[in-house]
Amino acid sequence: METPDRLAIHTMTTKPWDLPTAVAKYAAAGVRGVGLWRQWLDGRPLAESRSLLDDHGLKAVSLVRGGFFPGLTATERQAALDDNRRALDEAAAVGAPQVVLVCGAKPELSLAENRKQITDGIAACIDHAASVGVKLAIEPLHPMYADCRSAVNTIGQCNDMIDQLGDEWVGIAADVYHIWWDPELELQIRRAAARIIGFHVCDWLTPTSDFLNDRGLMGEGCIDIKGIRAMVEQTGFNGWIEVEIFSTRHWAGDQDGFLHNIINAYKQHV
Amino acid sequence: METPDRLAIHTMTTKPWDLPTAVAKYAAAGVRGVGLWRQWLDGRPLAESRSLLDDHGLKAVSLVRGGFFPGLTATERQAALDDNRRALDEAAAVGAPQVVLVCGAKPELSLAENRKQITDGIAACIDHAASVGVKLAIEPLHPMYADCRSAVNTIGQCNDMIDQLGDEWVGIAADVYHIWWDPELELQIRRAAARIIGFHVCDWLTPTSDFLNDRGLMGEGCIDIKGIRAMVEQTGFNGWIEVEIFSTRHWAGDQDGFLHNIINAYKQHV
Repeated sequence: METPDRLAIHTMTTKPWDLPTAVAKYAAAGVRGVGLWRQWLDGRPLAESRSLLDDHGLKAVSLVRGGFFPGLTATERQAALDDNRRALDEAAAVGAPQVVLVCGAKPELSLAENRKQITDGIAACIDHAASVGVKLAIEPLHPMYADCRSAVNTIGQCNDMIDQLGDEWVGIAADVYHIWWDPELELQIRRAAARIIGFHVCDWLTPTSDFLNDRGLMGEGCIDIKGIRAMVEQTGFNGWIEVEIFSTRHWAGDQDGFLHNIINAYKQHV
Repeated sequence: METPDRLAIHTMTTKPWDLPTAVAKYAAAGVRGVGLWRQWLDGRPLAESRSLLDDHGLKAVSLVRGGFFPGLTATERQAALDDNRRALDEAAAVGAPQVVLVCGAKPELSLAENRKQITDGIAACIDHAASVGVKLAIEPLHPMYADCRSAVNTIGQCNDMIDQLGDEWVGIAADVYHIWWDPELELQIRRAAARIIGFHVCDWLTPTSDFLNDRGLMGEGCIDIKGIRAMVEQTGFNGWIEVEIFSTRHWAGDQDGFLHNIINAYKQHV
């Protein structure tokens, strides 16, 4: 079985595997890219995580995740900035070219205030991003997360923000799960053009039983993944395609079999 | 306790009550408008339901619901048209000026095909709507329902559809639950103007535990209901404000107390 070149897998997708296990399994399966969740860096020096990747011929394609900028107090907001700068440092240390931003939201704040604090927060991290040479990838999240995970919910909104923030160090991570329903999708992807620096895939299940952890493997759901990929590649994007699946169901099964299915599903449905 | 003039309640909001109970309770509490779900019409002649309302000084402000236009076969699509025409007849019979459309979606069809079938379906019902003098109110549903309940997910999309369909017999039912997160909300409500013929309220809970039946009473969640009401009324809208709450939690409690709380919440948070 030949494994596609551009396939990357998020460590969260095979949640039961720790980093040494994940990199060994991915490498053995011919996968070359990893979406590295920060929890997988815990418990060992960054240089050691980097070596683990290098030794297996794996590339960290993104560090997941920064963001969560809105806060009820100045202290909370400052802590978020500190954490995002730390994430940028970590990304640089493991060789990841981008930090994916789940921008955050507080239900106690108005949408407008949440959105302002997010834009301000990203703006405050740009110098640090430039200094370590790592990009900030805004990931618009599905509107069902607008209350407490991200008040940034469409590619159109990302475009408006980046019009303000500049696009040298800020881009967009487009995840089909969050954006597939958007009537403006094609228009806004075209407008985003080279701003799209990340592309994540999974599928939307009918019915979906859980707000967070019931995503489908590509092909299990209704998302036109190939159609969205074509829109994204129309902009010139030819980077990694990252499989990011949160699924209590898949996590409960045999992960070796799941990895095999991911590669097959990628070939068939992406 | 004086009950606000424009308050209407959907029979689904007090699901445990049948129609005779609901109208008696609403009337006793000073509520004058009812969002009438079709299940509440079952089991008696339409004229009898109408008398029940009239005898209690209640007005059916909307019939809920038509829609579900997409189908996998021509037979299925025809059945949907027949059902929508029946809904229009029922609305006329009970004196409701509009049928609320939950437009439908089939995960087996592409978004584009779902959306085309919806527009075609509504178009095919306009003559009948005109003949019975009842409007079709498109209710955009939250994007988390785009797979199987409605492929119409924003006010912007409704506007685009109505640009095609004409607005003599087609309008928009704006429900804060579905639209609160939309970055284009103010812009698209302004564009909709007099097309907005229905306004529904409830709240978004954090966390939300169920995709369907975990809506909040106004004030329990994060939606800026007064802000959205102001946008809607800026267009000249001065119609009924319909309380539509699906909540396993509230349905499990004492409905008299819930009705009391609805009226208070309306006064405080709408």
